[in-house]
Amino acid sequence: MKVAMVGCGALGSYYGARLCRDGQETHFLLRSDYEAVRRHGVRVRSPEGDFHVRPQCARRPEEIGFCDLVLIGLKTTANDQFARLLPPLIGRATLLLTLQNGLGNERQLAALFGGQNVLGGLCFVCLNRLEPGLIQHSAHGRVVIGEYQRRPQARTHDIALLMRHAGVPCEVTENLERAHWEKLVWNIPFNGLGVAGTAGYDAVTQGTRPPGSRLDPCLTTDRLLSDPRWESLVRELMAEVIAAANALGLKVRGDLAGQQIAKTLTMGAYKASTLVDFERGQALELESLFLEPLCQARQAGVATPRLAALCALLQQLNPAC
Amino acid sequence: MKVAMVGCGALGSYYGARLCRDGQETHFLLRSDYEAVRRHGVRVRSPEGDFHVRPQCARRPEEIGFCDLVLIGLKTTANDQFARLLPPLIGRATLLLTLQNGLGNERQLAALFGGQNVLGGLCFVCLNRLEPGLIQHSAHGRVVIGEYQRRPQARTHDIALLMRHAGVPCEVTENLERAHWEKLVWNIPFNGLGVAGTAGYDAVTQGTRPPGSRLDPCLTTDRLLSDPRWESLVRELMAEVIAAANALGLKVRGDLAGQQIAKTLTMGAYKASTLVDFERGQALELESLFLEPLCQARQAGVATPRLAALCALLQQLNPAC
Repeated sequence: MKVAMVGCGALGSYYGARLCRDGQETHFLLRSDYEAVRRHGVRVRSPEGDFHVRPQCARRPEEIGFCDLVLIGLKTTANDQFARLLPPLIGRATLLLTLQNGLGNERQLAALFGGQNVLGGLCFVCLNRLEPGLIQHSAHGRVVIGEYQRRPQARTHDIALLMRHAGVPCEVTENLERAHWEKLVWNIPFNGLGVAGTAGYDAVTQGTRPPGSRLDPCLTTDRLLSDPRWESLVRELMAEVIAAANALGLKVRGDLAGQQIAKTLTMGAYKASTLVDFERGQALELESLFLEPLCQARQAGVATPRLAALCALLQQLNPAC
Repeated sequence: MKVAMVGCGALGSYYGARLCRDGQETHFLLRSDYEAVRRHGVRVRSPEGDFHVRPQCARRPEEIGFCDLVLIGLKTTANDQFARLLPPLIGRATLLLTLQNGLGNERQLAALFGGQNVLGGLCFVCLNRLEPGLIQHSAHGRVVIGEYQRRPQARTHDIALLMRHAGVPCEVTENLERAHWEKLVWNIPFNGLGVAGTAGYDAVTQGTRPPGSRLDPCLTTDRLLSDPRWESLVRELMAEVIAAANALGLKVRGDLAGQQIAKTLTMGAYKASTLVDFERGQALELESLFLEPLCQARQAGVATPRLAALCALLQQLNPAC
């Protein structure tokens, strides 16, 4: 199967390397890491066993041409590149599978290329790009895939099979939107407060930061759950996200919040991806993880004051601004 | 006809006073101005002739009871009061007409009370509340009314007739949503930049303000149009709003921008309502005038980077925060 990986950071490189290792014709679309990966390939360090692969490397999508499957691992802050990067890869039967964070990515693909061949995948994995072509896989790796505005098709299960054959635990969800919202129940408080908390509790609840105030270090999951004020704010945000999802007809169970908090307590001092971006001074994925959910909540008529204030502060803290 | 005016600032007091003067049974729901208006009534100073009326005054909606028509003149920042203030006024046939700024007000009323009796009105008027019970009417006064998600009905024209009989120029629009968006083509740049411009051009385009930076005075319409950089930003914002409206299927003509700028050039140093709120340190109507339009644009898949940056900065500057 001819597969293109668009966006070869830690996430794209890891899943692309797994497919490449499994014998799929895998093309990496690269920019800064092109020379390193072309010369030395991709090395993955993993508790499941280190491995090394040599995917085909391209600088421009035209060098790759039509594919059977295009995997998208770009940061959602780069979604404005869809229209430039993807058309050369897309033939009549090409499937587009975005592995990106949050809401709106499938819709953006559908707006450009039609919705009939768009799928989404949620990745539950801990990865780190140590240097060009060197990926550290720390834990997990499961992917949940689903169809955009459609129930699963035969092809959905075929892709899940392809992933599993490559050593990637992969499940098919009946409802991709619900799966996204259920992941947001975790992502919004822990990614959001982890970064926004650097400005202090009052700034987070008021949605603005005193001019010139100093920033504290990012708040890892354990710190958010060990402080009663932060922990109750985590729960309030989770309740708002669940209320929004249910107003959208997605039937998310209320006890999901408690379950996720219990699971998070076992994760130790985990640093969510937005915190890593923030500490590196990189643009935050605000649109897909925070602003799009806030907009959908508003459209559904759900009051989400905690989320609104969190979004306002995150926009102030966003290094891209 | 039994009419309640909910929200008796300058706008509510003015239109309520016109209806009261015309002999309608008009009830004002008041808070801070209750004593003054109960004792001395409402005086309106107007180029069309000063007048004085004594509406019935209430502190609580239960004192008023069911009405034929409820006019809503609250700031949209007070929309969370709908559920508390309106139920005692609403019988089976009560019509709800919101005269508030921007998008989402009709939808919020419909969510609470059903959409079948909800109407919206756009007010084109220059008013000022000089003191409790004393309203300065400087110019204009036209109201454009329409049905929520419906074409005009017989009742729509009846209300227009009621308003005209009270000396209020009133037209019926075929499409309330389009009328709202056409007004936003003006409101978003001139209300938005008038306030956000206090933080400087770079802050407006970047969507954030350097910590501790000083603020300039608000920018009146003439100042925005006399500076080439601001003027082109006005045009870019207008283009984004028109693009969003058209993506929503509202068919707003592109030359509306040029027409509104030409008309604005004749208005002199006009200070839009958001500037007045900002200078008074009052909460800005960000939800209805800026954030809801941004969300609807995003839902429609229209890129509105200028509007997004403007919204981010306005949230930072909002005195309510």
